[in-house]
Amino acid sequence: MPVDPLSRTFAALADPTRRAILARLSTGTCSVTQLAEPFEMSLPAVSKHLRVLERAHLIVRTREAQYRPCRIDGTPLKEVATWAEQYRHLWEGRLDRLDTYLQHMTTSQQETAHGRQPRRKQR
Amino acid sequence: MPVDPLSRTFAALADPTRRAILARLSTGTCSVTQLAEPFEMSLPAVSKHLRVLERAHLIVRTREAQYRPCRIDGTPLKEVATWAEQYRHLWEGRLDRLDTYLQHMTTSQQETAHGRQPRRKQR
Repeated sequence: MPVDPLSRTFAALADPTRRAILARLSTGTCSVTQLAEPFEMSLPAVSKHLRVLERAHLIVRTREAQYRPCRIDGTPLKEVATWAEQYRHLWEGRLDRLDTYLQHMTTSQQETAHGRQPRRKQR
Repeated sequence: MPVDPLSRTFAALADPTRRAILARLSTGTCSVTQLAEPFEMSLPAVSKHLRVLERAHLIVRTREAQYRPCRIDGTPLKEVATWAEQYRHLWEGRLDRLDTYLQHMTTSQQETAHGRQPRRKQR
């Protein structure tokens, strides 16, 4: 079954090692050996992750003499950001409701304080 | 192996039907039957997708008398947006370079046009 590009991107991102590889590559091009170093992982294991990222077009591998440096491609990440941003109203709506609640609480507390005329500490 | 929350979210989003269910739920709470309608899918198949979304905390299912309405939870989607946004410099850098290239092309064309004094069509 053919997988749509966005599903392939999300599937590739569903792994902390692959996300760490992308974080490393976002600072610049790397060789596979450089990428493998911080992960205490075999080169074949890293290569397997790189193939998943490459198939999702999240990285591009070029061939230069002895080695194949990897670089990140931001295009699918932009598509992820755009996709998630369409739901911004969900979390902003939630913050708006929290804000309204806190304003209500503050007003209620002020009214209570005003009614009781509490003593205030001198500073 | 325990799966970290962000990996679970990405894995749940790596399916077009589950993303379509979220799109439907972003407009309001639905029953499973209502969710199944546009997908020409059996209720058990939809329920399976809902379980994946529920485990990833992307939806919440409540129990009300006869049925279990579903509602979307934007929190994990906000985390996806925040995660992707950290790479904004990648695609904006790319657009900046495109912009510079286009400005360069426009300037070159204007200089060429000025040098040649081309005839323009009367409109």
